[in-house]
Amino acid sequence: MMLDETHDPRARSWLADANDHPEFPLQNLPLGVFSTAHGPSRGGIAIGEHILDVTKLSPLLSGDALRAAQAMSQPTLNALLSLGAGPRRALRRAVFAVLTERKHEVAVREALIPARECTMQLPADIGDYTDFYAGIHHAENIGRQFRPDNPLLPNYKYVPIGYHGRSSSIEVSGAEVIRPHAQIKGPNDAAPAYRASQRLDYELELGVWIAGANERGKPIPIADAGKYIAGLCLLNDWSARDVQVWEYQPLGPFLAKNFLTTISPWIVTMEALEPYRVAQPARPEGDPKPLPYLYDEHDQAAGTFDITLEVYLRTQRMREANQPAYRLSRGNMQFLYWTIAQLVAHHTCNGCNLRAGDLLGTGTISGTDPSSYGCLLELSQGGRSPVQLPNGEQRSFLEAGDEVSFVAYAEAPGRARIGFGECRGVVRDS
Amino acid sequence: MMLDETHDPRARSWLADANDHPEFPLQNLPLGVFSTAHGPSRGGIAIGEHILDVTKLSPLLSGDALRAAQAMSQPTLNALLSLGAGPRRALRRAVFAVLTERKHEVAVREALIPARECTMQLPADIGDYTDFYAGIHHAENIGRQFRPDNPLLPNYKYVPIGYHGRSSSIEVSGAEVIRPHAQIKGPNDAAPAYRASQRLDYELELGVWIAGANERGKPIPIADAGKYIAGLCLLNDWSARDVQVWEYQPLGPFLAKNFLTTISPWIVTMEALEPYRVAQPARPEGDPKPLPYLYDEHDQAAGTFDITLEVYLRTQRMREANQPAYRLSRGNMQFLYWTIAQLVAHHTCNGCNLRAGDLLGTGTISGTDPSSYGCLLELSQGGRSPVQLPNGEQRSFLEAGDEVSFVAYAEAPGRARIGFGECRGVVRDS
Repeated sequence: MMLDETHDPRARSWLADANDHPEFPLQNLPLGVFSTAHGPSRGGIAIGEHILDVTKLSPLLSGDALRAAQAMSQPTLNALLSLGAGPRRALRRAVFAVLTERKHEVAVREALIPARECTMQLPADIGDYTDFYAGIHHAENIGRQFRPDNPLLPNYKYVPIGYHGRSSSIEVSGAEVIRPHAQIKGPNDAAPAYRASQRLDYELELGVWIAGANERGKPIPIADAGKYIAGLCLLNDWSARDVQVWEYQPLGPFLAKNFLTTISPWIVTMEALEPYRVAQPARPEGDPKPLPYLYDEHDQAAGTFDITLEVYLRTQRMREANQPAYRLSRGNMQFLYWTIAQLVAHHTCNGCNLRAGDLLGTGTISGTDPSSYGCLLELSQGGRSPVQLPNGEQRSFLEAGDEVSFVAYAEAPGRARIGFGECRGVVRDS
Repeated sequence: MMLDETHDPRARSWLADANDHPEFPLQNLPLGVFSTAHGPSRGGIAIGEHILDVTKLSPLLSGDALRAAQAMSQPTLNALLSLGAGPRRALRRAVFAVLTERKHEVAVREALIPARECTMQLPADIGDYTDFYAGIHHAENIGRQFRPDNPLLPNYKYVPIGYHGRSSSIEVSGAEVIRPHAQIKGPNDAAPAYRASQRLDYELELGVWIAGANERGKPIPIADAGKYIAGLCLLNDWSARDVQVWEYQPLGPFLAKNFLTTISPWIVTMEALEPYRVAQPARPEGDPKPLPYLYDEHDQAAGTFDITLEVYLRTQRMREANQPAYRLSRGNMQFLYWTIAQLVAHHTCNGCNLRAGDLLGTGTISGTDPSSYGCLLELSQGGRSPVQLPNGEQRSFLEAGDEVSFVAYAEAPGRARIGFGECRGVVRDS
């Protein structure tokens, strides 16, 4: 798509808190589902410190924008996501217009609710959740710990490795992280036992929201994949490493992951992210070129995004001492080995059908050095080298009371900055 | 539960085709969703050659049975499954009564539709589908082919190995089996290529339908697991072996499986299966006892079922020559190493939440010798020893036009025989 007036960094709203908002300025307008004390769950758009109750805008809308707003009257955005990009873009332009033009101010103010009075819900009924493994530096770091002789398997640079995750335990930011019990066998144990995980970890990922659907048996060509992507969110693939190492062969992680996945509640749309597109980094010399079904020139030229990703930790003691959260790492989406279009093309290349509201995880996003590692297993080198916190505490893995928060934002020269909203959770022992 | 009048093998219906029906006699009464040319999808019960349009029975029902019938008025059985066992059992008894007592014959006949006029649908909106690997002989046979030195991994006899499957591509019997294309790397290929699978296979499994739901963070104790199981169906986990061998490490099968899973349309309820309960076979000498969270005396004493499972193949040439399908194998549920209660207890032991309408697959059920192997990969020894068919054809893997049908039935001395209905698919090249 082309950039349009909704990307203009000089645009100002009559709503003061929208202007220069670090996450939700006029140029973002992400989609979500919220509820209030007295109202049902319904679709909303974040603007500054407010949420726009989209259904209430209907009298001001027409055509595709009205269709999109009506689809957002439900407690999930699946209907909106089924409509595809056209109505979604029309709604974006219409909302941008009414937030900038004074003539609708009185009517639109009626539809604005302070965000602090709202509770965010899952944006969609997630039919299927698939988690990829596209962070190559993460795959190498983890591979080295699980298979020292064989960190990156021979298929990695050909196959966008992915597996099916659990939908039922995906929750929005704030959900309690209950330390799981499961079967664990330590390296020196003669037999496994059912006990609490001692190696609880987070994983920094982006989530990809699917719009539209393909028929079973009909792959999505990579050149069309963008049409099936509505937007992105933050995703924390909480992981119990001691459970994982014992259970994961031969069919992959199961109980080590499916106790909880936390996502940020807003779908930051492809439209909002358009100014931050960048070329997919060139593959290192010697790496194979993607197979034709995974290769598209336009996708290579502009298929990833300059999205900064940060992880913060605030322990119980830090909270009690009123100390701020500590930044554990800062990475970027560009560390992914595959573009999100490649993930969609691969997922469907065998005829597997995606549905509107499906969620893909990118896999943990780590960079090449520890300042950008996306989980504690990497940061602490498998627990051998605990992370030192400024207050003297240290962490190999998560402890009760630890709050993990992800932050993401996109920036580009001469453009507004847009953010993703919160993706956090506090660990509690069960 | 105790056996009651609904299990009486001498019971007769005024509906002639119900009596001595090989699959759907009075003693079965499985639950499903059907549609007709002029009606919406709604809940039904199979009886003989008919389907009982349950909603139409409402005037004859009261209390729990009425609640269950009303829940069945929807296009999925999720609401019914959410009610748990009480209403389901009450409906069973009420339906049994009206089909045996003459006084309701006129009214009930109004609610009976010839099965041949109905199209079966998925019984539920499947929130999550998990596939286990509980067929130990299958695991050994396959393990030997994928890892000759290491057929059964050290975790197998401790962990009910399972992984998440794909919900979107689960379809009821009859769905077209479209041969998938995907990335394949043959043993002598320098690099992979995107091409049609040449090693397309079926896998014989049972499906387990979940009733009720547990809260996230609250494991289901094994002694309670039965309350969360509504019933069973047949399940064909179609598999592309050449795709699987290249993609499956380290996160498990993905495109090799998610192009299609076929299930039989009827939920054969736990109530119907009660007379066929048998003890879980003793573990071989030297195998570890299940960990306490997986061990329940009652479950060991009566946690599996005498269910015979058969696989039939009918090729295009056999159909053209009007030859009957050929039986490739006959197995039994008792070959599973874990009971279905153990699967539920394991799945939730880390706090993972199940929801009504979730589906579990048992994993491929193979016996100890080739007459009971549950897939072609085992029957043909990885393709080295093709199966000889009576008409002179042979098969290592499936070819275009091949129809694979599963048949299952439960029998016990002095009891009626009940069946599962059809689970079939015809392969078509894409």
